Amino acid sequence: MRLSIEVRLDYGFAEPADVLLQVEAAAMADQRIEQESLILWSDTAIAAVPGEDGIGQRCWARGEGRLVAEYRAVVQVERPAVVLADYGATPARALPGAVVAYLMPSRYCPSDRFEGFVRAEFAGLSGGALAQALADWVRASLRYRAGTSSGVTTALDTFAMRAGVCRDYAHLLVALARAAAIPARCVSAYAPGVDPPDFHAVAELWLDGAWRLVDPTGMASCRDIARVAVGRDATDIAFMTIWGEAVMYGQSVTVRELC
Amino acid sequence: MRLSIEVRLDYGFAEPADVLLQVEAAAMADQRIEQESLILWSDTAIAAVPGEDGIGQRCWARGEGRLVAEYRAVVQVERPAVVLADYGATPARALPGAVVAYLMPSRYCPSDRFEGFVRAEFAGLSGGALAQALADWVRASLRYRAGTSSGVTTALDTFAMRAGVCRDYAHLLVALARAAAIPARCVSAYAPGVDPPDFHAVAELWLDGAWRLVDPTGMASCRDIARVAVGRDATDIAFMTIWGEAVMYGQSVTVRELC
Amino acid sequence: MRLSIEVRLDYGFAEPADVLLQVEAAAMADQRIEQESLILWSDTAIAAVPGEDGIGQRCWARGEGRLVAEYRAVVQVERPAVVLADYGATPARALPGAVVAYLMPSRYCPSDRFEGFVRAEFAGLSGGALAQALADWVRASLRYRAGTSSGVTTALDTFAMRAGVCRDYAHLLVALARAAAIPARCVSAYAPGVDPPDFHAVAELWLDGAWRLVDPTGMASCRDIARVAVGRDATDIAFMTIWGEAVMYGQSVTVRELC
Amino acid sequence: MRLSIEVRLDYGFAEPADVLLQVEAAAMADQRIEQESLILWSDTAIAAVPGEDGIGQRCWARGEGRLVAEYRAVVQVERPAVVLADYGATPARALPGAVVAYLMPSRYCPSDRFEGFVRAEFAGLSGGALAQALADWVRASLRYRAGTSSGVTTALDTFAMRAGVCRDYAHLLVALARAAAIPARCVSAYAPGVDPPDFHAVAELWLDGAWRLVDPTGMASCRDIARVAVGRDATDIAFMTIWGEAVMYGQSVTVRELC
Repeated sequence: MRLSIEVRLDYGFAEPADVLLQVEAAAMADQRIEQESLILWSDTAIAAVPGEDGIGQRCWARGEGRLVAEYRAVVQVERPAVVLADYGATPARALPGAVVAYLMPSRYCPSDRFEGFVRAEFAGLSGGALAQALADWVRASLRYRAGTSSGVTTALDTFAMRAGVCRDYAHLLVALARAAAIPARCVSAYAPGVDPPDFHAVAELWLDGAWRLVDPTGMASCRDIARVAVGRDATDIAFMTIWGEAVMYGQSVTVRELC
Repeated sequence: MRLSIEVRLDYGFAEPADVLLQVEAAAMADQRIEQESLILWSDTAIAAVPGEDGIGQRCWARGEGRLVAEYRAVVQVERPAVVLADYGATPARALPGAVVAYLMPSRYCPSDRFEGFVRAEFAGLSGGALAQALADWVRASLRYRAGTSSGVTTALDTFAMRAGVCRDYAHLLVALARAAAIPARCVSAYAPGVDPPDFHAVAELWLDGAWRLVDPTGMASCRDIARVAVGRDATDIAFMTIWGEAVMYGQSVTVRELC
Repeated sequence: MRLSIEVRLDYGFAEPADVLLQVEAAAMADQRIEQESLILWSDTAIAAVPGEDGIGQRCWARGEGRLVAEYRAVVQVERPAVVLADYGATPARALPGAVVAYLMPSRYCPSDRFEGFVRAEFAGLSGGALAQALADWVRASLRYRAGTSSGVTTALDTFAMRAGVCRDYAHLLVALARAAAIPARCVSAYAPGVDPPDFHAVAELWLDGAWRLVDPTGMASCRDIARVAVGRDATDIAFMTIWGEAVMYGQSVTVRELC
Repeated sequence: MRLSIEVRLDYGFAEPADVLLQVEAAAMADQRIEQESLILWSDTAIAAVPGEDGIGQRCWARGEGRLVAEYRAVVQVERPAVVLADYGATPARALPGAVVAYLMPSRYCPSDRFEGFVRAEFAGLSGGALAQALADWVRASLRYRAGTSSGVTTALDTFAMRAGVCRDYAHLLVALARAAAIPARCVSAYAPGVDPPDFHAVAELWLDGAWRLVDPTGMASCRDIARVAVGRDATDIAFMTIWGEAVMYGQSVTVRELC
């Protein structure tokens, strides 16, 4: 699968502010960057650092007056299909140190609150079978609906509202998985078929020694997803984080399958 | 059913503070106060005002140094058994003005978040049948367990934790009912059989023109409950509210059935 | 001061929903309704009940397909200027029962958290002098800025963000006042000079035996304000509460001073 | 400074649960472990992995029936005194990638809400001078008081309550620093002079190319502190995290200065 990605961000700043962008598809074994350009119209040179877990990169820009960013890329995604249920369970003591942080509750994924629900509803399951059951439950229980949630919506809200957008689906699955002692992280990504076209958010669960992509919305196949960034929740993977205030003038994301 | 009630509160105050007590069983048609005494060892005279919805009373005291309160009462409770499912549905437009506030979300019962869950899980039900289904669901889904929750636990937390104490059961039922446009209030009460003996919290749902008592914990029959106070949630019905700080030296509640 | 008020609400409903409107200026001694009409294009007859504390009224409508409401009124406001600082302090024990609920923390005004701040910053003040100091502090500390807050913003958020809109100013003042054991309620209102024109929110503090209007934004004089509804916080005074979902097609509020 | 540390944890488990311990002083250049033993009475072998940022270690145990852990160590701490105000400001773009995560809001340190306060109160300051001003402000504004807060208290709560324990002081300082675009992390530590003796929590701010320890409670000098773990907030540095439920039978922490 080859994806063509085009992003345009156009923001205004009444006062100068530091801006952290995470919009570039990450170069990884299962997603190869064939072409890429990131152009920022800004007087200040940009500076890039690796993203969380060394995946992708974060790019510092300076918002002064107006900040326009254009990103274009072609990405070759080659990734075997994932059948979560095939993976065995890993005891907590056998987890690598680097994934332990992904067992912890986070701001939008307060997983400690969900232990009771997970124990009650999914008793007897473990490992990949449990992960699959959690993902199925999220997909079956939520309704995809724009406008239901906002930037402060947590997995607790979504759990009661039974509706949300991709971010909310990912948060809820991540929270449930961590409650079950399965490491889980959030992933921002480009995926074809997202409607309306936008940045997409999915989840990765650590099963049988590796991170396994899963899209609880069912919108995308894990074979077609190009990761941008990973992290504990939406906090870490936002496409733009601003220390200060900005006004959006325009924003567009286009992801197309190339034949 | 005649109940003998004995309460003793013993608190210390490093700095003087206003204290609002709600510990007296309310005089109501279905619960007659046969004997009652409330003694406060305090230099400041107490002052009483009616409680929410004119039910029971709130008693102002002054916490200075030490505040000891002793309450004793004998209450005759005569109340027909309630079968929620027998009541018909009241359209919102037919509700008396005084109960509309009990449709609103409140701090511990953020009912607006639960509309999605209620619609999805209880579609097709209304009125008393819906109320009964909600109460049954709460009772079946939660585990009664001391120490699970704290004074800041909301119905959203409880909904995910699937455990709590009487306060949490009441909050969750009230939140679900309001989400279904059934007015619901929290009730503090004395009830025999609560273990360990303590203040009890239950719910009242407005069905078919009157408030109907229901104990979602199943600990008490609505026939044996002596209401103390009603309100939107634990905020309104606390047995003691302090503007300032206090240390608890001792507290005991005893409720016995008299033959 | 005579105010001419025009409101138009236009909402769409994918599924039928109960809708509670609170848009009519309240008939009160200090604000006389000279002319008034509320027209709803709806197949279902509306039903009105009194608002909180018997002030104004709530109007039930049914959202089916589309709901358009038009409200027009001329209101004569005659109210003496309020100098908060002139009022003495009322001890908690002398408060009428009906105002005690307005000492309690509520969802958006978690006043119990603010006791430490109020004690530390406003030590030695009481009654009207304290109320004035709190209102002055809110006005001086916050910046009025649209888009800072949302429907879930609490006074705790606003206290840290130091910015908000009228709703947030009112919530913060109400929270601080209750923390100081001064009863405080939120008030929705029409006021000239609000820019952009919209529903306005202010506060009322109970001082010296009566509710005293105060606009912590400083946008309006308490002499020019026509109350619509009162309540514990934005929950109670919303101009529209929906049990279900709606889409806004249009909404406008115009308030003009008539000479 | 040589510290003698003794910890004893004694917990009971009704059902088997995974337990993550972080109680060992971290081996670091400025704190050398002279002697150390960690004994767990448990049938299951423990497993250790590195802590966050490669500092210290996390130790997996299995809570079955009863879990008793005893930790003893002698640690030599040699660390120059820190004068925060001496450090210059680092522009965000010059930060190493590994510290960027410590600019992000987290569950207990919702730093995005504090940007308004920091901008309003500390305008004109930057770098070490700003960090010092923030630490001084926290120390001067909060009152140390056990029982004020709980495990769910956030920096927003503490900011209004103006009181808390070491955890709350650290959370608030960390939130304020991040709001000012200064990377900040929470540190669990052993420190002499903490009264009552307990695990201690302090902060580290990234200034002038390194993490700088600061104890906003003023209880400990940064020269006497032995770090155990670092992380985004209390979530990451808890001495014990349990996937399941436990009852505390006993817990003691002793930290003594050796001559």
